[in-house]
Amino acid sequence: MTLWKGCWFFRGHCRAVRNVAARSLFQITVYDQESFQGKRMEFTSACPNIMECGFDNIRSLKVECGAWVGYEHTGFCGQQFILERGEYPRWDAWSGSNAYHIERLMSFRPVCSANHKESKITVFEKDNFIGRQWEISDDYPSLQAMGWANNEVGSMKIPCGAWVCYQYPGYRGYQYVLEADHHGGDYKHWREWGSHAQTSQIQSIRRIQQ
Amino acid sequence: MTLWKGCWFFRGHCRAVRNVAARSLFQITVYDQESFQGKRMEFTSACPNIMECGFDNIRSLKVECGAWVGYEHTGFCGQQFILERGEYPRWDAWSGSNAYHIERLMSFRPVCSANHKESKITVFEKDNFIGRQWEISDDYPSLQAMGWANNEVGSMKIPCGAWVCYQYPGYRGYQYVLEADHHGGDYKHWREWGSHAQTSQIQSIRRIQQ
Repeated sequence: MTLWKGCWFFRGHCRAVRNVAARSLFQITVYDQESFQGKRMEFTSACPNIMECGFDNIRSLKVECGAWVGYEHTGFCGQQFILERGEYPRWDAWSGSNAYHIERLMSFRPVCSANHKESKITVFEKDNFIGRQWEISDDYPSLQAMGWANNEVGSMKIPCGAWVCYQYPGYRGYQYVLEADHHGGDYKHWREWGSHAQTSQIQSIRRIQQ
Repeated sequence: MTLWKGCWFFRGHCRAVRNVAARSLFQITVYDQESFQGKRMEFTSACPNIMECGFDNIRSLKVECGAWVGYEHTGFCGQQFILERGEYPRWDAWSGSNAYHIERLMSFRPVCSANHKESKITVFEKDNFIGRQWEISDDYPSLQAMGWANNEVGSMKIPCGAWVCYQYPGYRGYQYVLEADHHGGDYKHWREWGSHAQTSQIQSIRRIQQ
């Protein structure tokens, strides 16, 4: 039930996205084989299910414009993969280098609130926005190197921009894409970071650039 | 022959590193099993061959202080893995999520010139510092999103700080650790980025923080 609500939320969001995309702020080309081979399709707005376009999976892609987030499952669920402008010739070019290798990319959508120049996030020690807090407006490949006490974050508030938080230092492991225009920018518990989130472990964090 | 010259260079460098490390700017704990289990050893300076310490491999590690770079082979050769402060419970926490999976970390050293606040790099379109150029002093998860024409960089000059350059956008794929105090900060051809470099493909770039 929770999963379905999550998917419904993004479906609603994506209707708005289509209007933005009409101004060509977002463009992605996906392929059903590695190294930009096989069946090919261009998108300028969200795709909740690549199978409805005759693909069994996406095995390579090029982001021509804007920032996108890909998902392991249809309906914008499962592991999240940030996709910024450039070329991704195979699955491990976008995956979080995690032991949990599924090699599926079944849905994707634009990250409309990405704004590299004006992004803020406040991280809190505990859930529900309590405990020690720290307002961040830059990229941090190691939160601990900058004084954060441990390898966990309890909750987060995002007043502007969009961010990727990572399980390990150096932008590795599970990825969580968190945005000012989702949940009202409030992520009060790690379960809200994504349907694949299993712990509150976060060790690096960065802005998403448009 | 080229490989040996590269290794010799880092051996010389590491003698100097030991003096710096004496002031406890650098500390790393390595384990021969995943999840911080098994044999354990602390280091405050470079280790050119973990087998000389009775390890067959490193399978997890914690960086307590400073930035380090790990290498696939002994003698600071092969794939490079940037290691910043935090916990790395297994190989894929530091690897570049590349199809080329070796799962070996046999030597490591501190990155002495890392300076998150004052870092500069100039990227050039072609080798030998010719063609279009761009001076960078911030992190860029996608060079193309910021106006770089393609997915390649021909050569680089680093007047200050230390940087990691990555094959794919979003800090994925092969990693190249490039420093102001190596090669005089001049990397005039992709062959100088590391003994594992095979192409001039670079799509994201970031500062190393201390």
